[in-house]
Amino acid sequence: MSENRKPNIVVIGGGTGSHTVLSGLKKHPVNLTAVVTMADDGGSTGRLRTEFGVLPPGDVRQCLVALSEGDPILQQLFSHRFQSGELAGHSAGNLFLSALEQITGSLDKAVDLAGGVLQIRGSVCPVTLEKVRLIAELNNGKVLYGEAAISAYQLISRFGLKRLYLSPSAQVNPKAITAIKEADMIVIGPGNLYSSLLPNFLVGGLRAAVVHSKAKKVFIANLMTKHGHTDGFSVFDYVREIESRLKPGIIETVIYNTKKPSQRLIHENVDEGEPVQFVPTKEFRGRSVLGLNLLADRLHETPKVDMLRRTLIRHDSEKLAKAIMSVL
Amino acid sequence: MSENRKPNIVVIGGGTGSHTVLSGLKKHPVNLTAVVTMADDGGSTGRLRTEFGVLPPGDVRQCLVALSEGDPILQQLFSHRFQSGELAGHSAGNLFLSALEQITGSLDKAVDLAGGVLQIRGSVCPVTLEKVRLIAELNNGKVLYGEAAISAYQLISRFGLKRLYLSPSAQVNPKAITAIKEADMIVIGPGNLYSSLLPNFLVGGLRAAVVHSKAKKVFIANLMTKHGHTDGFSVFDYVREIESRLKPGIIETVIYNTKKPSQRLIHENVDEGEPVQFVPTKEFRGRSVLGLNLLADRLHETPKVDMLRRTLIRHDSEKLAKAIMSVL
Repeated sequence: MSENRKPNIVVIGGGTGSHTVLSGLKKHPVNLTAVVTMADDGGSTGRLRTEFGVLPPGDVRQCLVALSEGDPILQQLFSHRFQSGELAGHSAGNLFLSALEQITGSLDKAVDLAGGVLQIRGSVCPVTLEKVRLIAELNNGKVLYGEAAISAYQLISRFGLKRLYLSPSAQVNPKAITAIKEADMIVIGPGNLYSSLLPNFLVGGLRAAVVHSKAKKVFIANLMTKHGHTDGFSVFDYVREIESRLKPGIIETVIYNTKKPSQRLIHENVDEGEPVQFVPTKEFRGRSVLGLNLLADRLHETPKVDMLRRTLIRHDSEKLAKAIMSVL
Repeated sequence: MSENRKPNIVVIGGGTGSHTVLSGLKKHPVNLTAVVTMADDGGSTGRLRTEFGVLPPGDVRQCLVALSEGDPILQQLFSHRFQSGELAGHSAGNLFLSALEQITGSLDKAVDLAGGVLQIRGSVCPVTLEKVRLIAELNNGKVLYGEAAISAYQLISRFGLKRLYLSPSAQVNPKAITAIKEADMIVIGPGNLYSSLLPNFLVGGLRAAVVHSKAKKVFIANLMTKHGHTDGFSVFDYVREIESRLKPGIIETVIYNTKKPSQRLIHENVDEGEPVQFVPTKEFRGRSVLGLNLLADRLHETPKVDMLRRTLIRHDSEKLAKAIMSVL
């Protein structure tokens, strides 16, 4: 990489996790591309998919807001949830993106226009522009249809996941391939393993692009396990699961949190499991690992109604960005 | 007025009529302010008022789009109507404005932000920032509550309008007063008499500002009467009605259309009455009058679903603007 150009970082993930990484990294001298899962089918996003046949706007929206350097009120607008009547629970940003997709016929164009309005630094790239449904088959024969159903089902750990796939199968957005080819670093995570992270690697063409990329691959471990999904997972259990979709050993650097959240905060988060532990398993050997206090000191100031299904225990975006920059 | 400054024009009215005037005038070297009625309570606007207690966004939205010099797709976004499910009939621009009003606590601020996004030339000013309902009392004792009810009632001509008022009474937006004080010309109309034009002059303080203004007052006559509201009205019947809320003789210049729409178009417009005729009544004397072919040659290319309750017989915005500029 030449001395004079800013390094290219591609962040692969979904809504809240990518939002945190991007919010922090945008304050550093780097070129950012967010590659975003298109599997969401719950909440406001799910209603829009059902009614208009659009692509899911929710994860894209969170990344756009994270990268915005425009008027803070327009950022608030994109995150605003209507609170009553027939619109209750809808996000204004989701409506904005879905209307633009209907007008332009393309979520890619809608994202570019919304990015212009929000004056984003970097770019946001839906991992695919094809409409897919995420499906999980468990070892006991049960099949879960759709990201929302999978996310809500709390017995995946008990029965074991046999297969996770997209239906129909879908090809990667060419913009994601270009960004990955030019990347100096690829950041994976944090995010829910089955509903936010792995669905990206199920899109045809993404795996090969990441595996063949010369970029440094960095994984950001989650703070907490997800109850019924990743019970008992330590840092390298996540790494093993992700590498099983990519290539064993491909993640060179692992960043994880060492500060335990307060018992009060853990008790308030009934949907979450336990803090993710660092356990030096065999997958640990030969990698760079960076354990730091990455915990946000106080609750993220998201409007309450947007906190539904969102975690209250969060990474501090500035600490996390500093950690990522230190391993660049 | 100094040679070097652009003349200030204030356009008083409502949605579609003001949209036409502003779309044409923005291509001329003038400073534009749209003063917009806040009485609408039907359709998408009515649903938003009921559910969120916001001010009516619909007329404001149409004026913002008319003044936009930004990306045409963002203009389309503001006019976009959702077509299915629980959002059916809602305008994306209305949702955008109502969300911004909820976030900022002020429709004025919401309009400024939306104006920034749409890169408008000029400004849009809600006539009042207080929540009002338009009420019509007829001579037979019947009372119609709300603009939508008044607009839909087709026996006003038969029974006669006794009183039109706002409940509760409301004071004018100070920005409107400032714009009127600095105006070189005030353009009134076109628009529905009872539901778009007169409601502006029912707001406390607007009448006095217009009456005391040194600006030239210009009235644009409607193309068609409204069935059940203004049956048989000729150009000066409108002038008399408007001046009864202002001051007799205050309108110096009247611009009206001389080209009759095709019978086919008239037949297709069941909600409208007959072409407005020029009849030289006593109100005619001493005024400047300008009769021209002002008719749009072909149908306005508004998306079909936005044509609900909208007229198909329209002024040509360029011809109209040229006529207005000629009397400046």
